[in-house]
Amino acid sequence: MRGVVMHAPGDVRVEERADARIIEPTDAVIRLTAACICGSDLWPYRGIEKLAGPTPMGHEYVGVVEQVGDQVRNVQVGDFVVGSFVASDNTCEICQAGYQSRCVHNVMMGSEGTQAELARVPLADGTLVPTPGSPPADLVPSLLAASDVLGTGWFAAVAAEAGPGRTIAVVGDGAVGLSAVLAARQLGAERVIVFSRHPERQALAREFGATDVVEERGDAGAARVRELTRGYGAHGVVEAVGTEESMWQAIRSARPGGYVGYVGVTHGVQLDGLDLFFTGVHLHGGPAPVRRFLPELIQLIWDRKIDPGKVFDLTLPLEDAAEGYRAMDERRATKVLLTP
Amino acid sequence: MRGVVMHAPGDVRVEERADARIIEPTDAVIRLTAACICGSDLWPYRGIEKLAGPTPMGHEYVGVVEQVGDQVRNVQVGDFVVGSFVASDNTCEICQAGYQSRCVHNVMMGSEGTQAELARVPLADGTLVPTPGSPPADLVPSLLAASDVLGTGWFAAVAAEAGPGRTIAVVGDGAVGLSAVLAARQLGAERVIVFSRHPERQALAREFGATDVVEERGDAGAARVRELTRGYGAHGVVEAVGTEESMWQAIRSARPGGYVGYVGVTHGVQLDGLDLFFTGVHLHGGPAPVRRFLPELIQLIWDRKIDPGKVFDLTLPLEDAAEGYRAMDERRATKVLLTP
Repeated sequence: MRGVVMHAPGDVRVEERADARIIEPTDAVIRLTAACICGSDLWPYRGIEKLAGPTPMGHEYVGVVEQVGDQVRNVQVGDFVVGSFVASDNTCEICQAGYQSRCVHNVMMGSEGTQAELARVPLADGTLVPTPGSPPADLVPSLLAASDVLGTGWFAAVAAEAGPGRTIAVVGDGAVGLSAVLAARQLGAERVIVFSRHPERQALAREFGATDVVEERGDAGAARVRELTRGYGAHGVVEAVGTEESMWQAIRSARPGGYVGYVGVTHGVQLDGLDLFFTGVHLHGGPAPVRRFLPELIQLIWDRKIDPGKVFDLTLPLEDAAEGYRAMDERRATKVLLTP
Repeated sequence: MRGVVMHAPGDVRVEERADARIIEPTDAVIRLTAACICGSDLWPYRGIEKLAGPTPMGHEYVGVVEQVGDQVRNVQVGDFVVGSFVASDNTCEICQAGYQSRCVHNVMMGSEGTQAELARVPLADGTLVPTPGSPPADLVPSLLAASDVLGTGWFAAVAAEAGPGRTIAVVGDGAVGLSAVLAARQLGAERVIVFSRHPERQALAREFGATDVVEERGDAGAARVRELTRGYGAHGVVEAVGTEESMWQAIRSARPGGYVGYVGVTHGVQLDGLDLFFTGVHLHGGPAPVRRFLPELIQLIWDRKIDPGKVFDLTLPLEDAAEGYRAMDERRATKVLLTP
């Protein structure tokens, strides 16, 4: 099968890989309808994360079940399915509490490399959620978004306790941040403040429900949020970048006792304990348990109540993946969809 | 009036200070029935926190109202009152959300120095809670505990989401940690694991409701908690020490998606963002909003349902405060009560 392999920073190739196949009786193999490039794929692309060697890429996926192992019961060959970037059994105590991304048997889908024609999905019964039917083509980008960026933004908005009467600020105007804007508004937030300096992303944020745009960053950005909230700060803040500046921007934008949901994979961040102590915020984040939200998100998409697929502003054939990485690296694209 | 003044690390004196008096019309002056020495008073005593000069000490207090300002309505001269270590208006949006320790008008009672015969209490209406009557002498230590250590332990147990069916671990066997054990059990926790190597504190922890004692520390301690919880980790953990080792011991004792309530004033702690990210815990703490819990705690004490005053294992006249500091510094006493 054809698949994306990163050989070194900046060196992404589409080449022949061994076909995905059933290894465990709980596996499924899916034929991808669409895959995409994640913001987190840019960390090794930019040399900030080390590569051990040539690495198959991709962890987001939607597609059609092509083969199932002997013990798979919940999905059938032919089903159109969405899964999270972490395979999970969905039965252990951690999964049942809603933290499937930390399932005791979790498998990171990045190790399978879903920027490819086929992918093995471990723990298929726990991981995959079939859609109500075969989706029309125009729903595919949104279903793919649910696989990671929407689910991640949704988790962050839940962690930020978005809800009626609340003011939620969102740090990060990438696909996850924009998805968090959509999520906060869907969850009932009265006011959604997005930090962004990028006109097109500001426009999409407003379309997704942002009520205010703040262009300042860091402490100046946090001060602006306090101004907009009668000095108190936001009830909840989503952090979707992952730098030390963005973490403190998020924490300082929240009021004492407020909630910070952080989902940007943190790089080089050291949080001073005493500073954090005196902010008095709730801090919760990590790899999003996307699986928790998938049934609800799929239904919202199926019913055309949300259109998170708009975060994809460039669609390319799988063969042109290298151009997709370049476009995201150069911020010419927010999020690139790949069609195998 | 007589009051405790710290002149330098290790140099605590009881001397004449200007009488506490009404300054703002919202003030009250109370005559202290009892005050005490806090674990946090040991930071400057040990030279870890700098002193700007001779500093009046103390922020915990119970006593009788001696004088009120013109605008005070909720407390009368003669009332027996308990207040928190932070004076708060109890009306601003932050107070109303339960974060009185971060009231927009907050005043740290440490600046008044309650290890004294009299103390000024700013924002008396918001800060002071009268008891149902004049308490019998044997309830005074418990009411004093409510003013800080019990309220702080209670907040930490709430932040750790202690409740029915939950396993809660407590890092720290000082007065706050022991109070958190009591709180976790009162809040319904099924199992309370306390980290302690000190036989007398272990005994009091068991009396307060601890079901398990772990003597290991650091990663070994966290591993022991996982062993005790079928590999998952505790549902919630209280951190009541404030060092980097104790913070990670707490975080690593919690299961993914679990809750860490931290109330040890952190000193020299740097939290690595990426490590924290992958733990997936909820982290919440800071100066405890003790005022939120005071009415409930006073009632539990009044009804003799809890006896948190047992954390005081040494009672001294105010004049002997220096000996009280020595006893706590040398860990000969867990918590020292001072009678003016």
